[in-house]
Amino acid sequence: MGLETGSIRIGVIGGGQLARMMVPPAIHLGLRISVLAENEGSSAERAADMVGDYRDPETVYAFADTVDVITFDHEHVPQEILEELERRGVAVHPRPASLQFAQDKIVMREKLAELGVPIPAWAAVSNEAELQEFIAANGGRAVVKTARGGYDGKGVRVVADAAEVRDWFTALDEDGHGGHLLVEELVDFTRELSQLVARRPSGETRTWPVVETIQRDGVCAEVLAPAPVANPATLDEAARIGAVVAEGVAVTGVLAVEMFETRDGRVLVNELAMRPHNSGHFSIEGSVTSQFEQHLRAVADLPLGDTRMTAPAAVMVNVLGGPAEGPMPVRYAAALAAHPGAKIHSYDKQPRPGRKVGHVTVVGDDMTEVRAAAKAAAAAFD
Amino acid sequence: MGLETGSIRIGVIGGGQLARMMVPPAIHLGLRISVLAENEGSSAERAADMVGDYRDPETVYAFADTVDVITFDHEHVPQEILEELERRGVAVHPRPASLQFAQDKIVMREKLAELGVPIPAWAAVSNEAELQEFIAANGGRAVVKTARGGYDGKGVRVVADAAEVRDWFTALDEDGHGGHLLVEELVDFTRELSQLVARRPSGETRTWPVVETIQRDGVCAEVLAPAPVANPATLDEAARIGAVVAEGVAVTGVLAVEMFETRDGRVLVNELAMRPHNSGHFSIEGSVTSQFEQHLRAVADLPLGDTRMTAPAAVMVNVLGGPAEGPMPVRYAAALAAHPGAKIHSYDKQPRPGRKVGHVTVVGDDMTEVRAAAKAAAAAFD
Repeated sequence: MGLETGSIRIGVIGGGQLARMMVPPAIHLGLRISVLAENEGSSAERAADMVGDYRDPETVYAFADTVDVITFDHEHVPQEILEELERRGVAVHPRPASLQFAQDKIVMREKLAELGVPIPAWAAVSNEAELQEFIAANGGRAVVKTARGGYDGKGVRVVADAAEVRDWFTALDEDGHGGHLLVEELVDFTRELSQLVARRPSGETRTWPVVETIQRDGVCAEVLAPAPVANPATLDEAARIGAVVAEGVAVTGVLAVEMFETRDGRVLVNELAMRPHNSGHFSIEGSVTSQFEQHLRAVADLPLGDTRMTAPAAVMVNVLGGPAEGPMPVRYAAALAAHPGAKIHSYDKQPRPGRKVGHVTVVGDDMTEVRAAAKAAAAAFD
Repeated sequence: MGLETGSIRIGVIGGGQLARMMVPPAIHLGLRISVLAENEGSSAERAADMVGDYRDPETVYAFADTVDVITFDHEHVPQEILEELERRGVAVHPRPASLQFAQDKIVMREKLAELGVPIPAWAAVSNEAELQEFIAANGGRAVVKTARGGYDGKGVRVVADAAEVRDWFTALDEDGHGGHLLVEELVDFTRELSQLVARRPSGETRTWPVVETIQRDGVCAEVLAPAPVANPATLDEAARIGAVVAEGVAVTGVLAVEMFETRDGRVLVNELAMRPHNSGHFSIEGSVTSQFEQHLRAVADLPLGDTRMTAPAAVMVNVLGGPAEGPMPVRYAAALAAHPGAKIHSYDKQPRPGRKVGHVTVVGDDMTEVRAAAKAAAAAFD
């Protein structure tokens, strides 16, 4: 708060599209935002005041000296660095004690079990024999995940035989990567849901409507907001779980709780993310307060905004990979002309197969029409 | 288009809040935006890649070398510089041949007269005798304006005697400021209207609903979108005039046509602005495509977006001056807590009496409720 204009200075570690999309609401709210980006040319380059390695303590401490609060584009900053920041009196949100539950999937499963929220059967296994035993006890197939570092389907394999992740066990032995892999039952789900929750240090929380997320090849492809009502009880249950988890992990900032809705009507927690999340991008246009604005408010300990939807339906479709002909802007003239009501977001990234390079959101009265419009507009970039 | 990601690079001359508010849509659309700001600490500092004097030709030419298209936060860049940019092959939007109608109020009046749109009685006067004659012929009072450089009530006086602007005539003699003052009849208006129009170089145009603007002390205080319907014919007439002017001046980018609605049911053009305008700030939340996004699309010659409103009513209230206790953020905790549905915009400026330091927009179903909510939220910063 040392600035003449009184602005709060927020520092974001990580220069991806989540940091990038925090910049617009920071500008509107009059907050100063700085980004510690991994490299030149990052998606958040617009706001990248510093380029450096988030695993280097001195780099992070120097960045923290320039801001009033530290938050994140990703969950990969080492705990030791975050804890030292707190010891030095720096405001860090989410706090390292909370962030650990999003950094390590085994720690997360232990916490969710402690909180009593429904989760898939799971175990932490340290060798092929333990894994094979779990597979045998859970129907002959299971999902194996590395405890750390996975995202967008990376670090996740469905296996029938423990030998299929022998390379991961070998790596565990070599780099001491926590010593265990996470194995979970293969859940027979009908669809996936996500509950976004924002929570301030003071404890004030706000939730958005539960959304349905549609994945392809392990990557989020579409988000329908609100989730179409199949069984109202499951949406209520998803909302209840989201609230329990947000309180239980004492998140500060935005939390996404990703869940499975099972064929037999249960809701099970799949993953947690402690930051704005792909399942909340719809909120930029679809909610009075977007997840990005809310995250900034929460980490700055400002009162949270209204999360009501701006229309009955919003659909977000990711733009993956990038078109064969080149980056997104090459298609702009045709795409914007054909879809004047679609909100097209480009992350200003070089396209690579499967890479999220942008997304499209359409908001309106009818979910079926809105979804068709969003898919058509996103298809202009296929 | 020389970037690896194919982004179009837009350069904005002027570092005020209009440039600042172009940054969020540039980020979302994946456009690169740079700002040539007048000084350090400008409102658009976030995007200020260069600080320099827009009246210095070499500064402007060097800035233009870094971008694909030049546009503006204000209308004050000298014609000679803009014309030279075009001779050098730089895309400048709006083009200098159009911008002149917003730069000089006498040139504007001549053009509007040529276009046949209704305007107040006016004259270009070069001495007190000519002015006194106009006053006498128009009811004993008139509005005198400097042809250049006025804004927000500056450069405008209502006079009954020509001696009241003797200082301006003296200054005209001294600095050769066009040689004339503009004098206009004092219009007996019931309210003020504004029509925003966006137009691409290709000629494609889009308009937003006509809005009502409410001024206090010559400064825009509130905007009601759409303008409440008193007489449907006058709104149709305002829209017709807006379209005629946009075509007539061949604007590229956003044009605001400010109009008087008179007691006897006429609509007269008051002012033109060739850039995003205070009367269009409501569109950030109130329209599918905001005036800032549309301006960027237009100057980049990209297809224009849908301008429909996102809800039946939107009201914008300016935050002027700044609170006695200091800059806007000091009031944030209380204001955001009391008004979670209001969209609060701070320009990150040091407050000065009467200076526009931010605005508040509320969107909803009922104009009366929306207006009350917007005024209450803005009052939190009084």
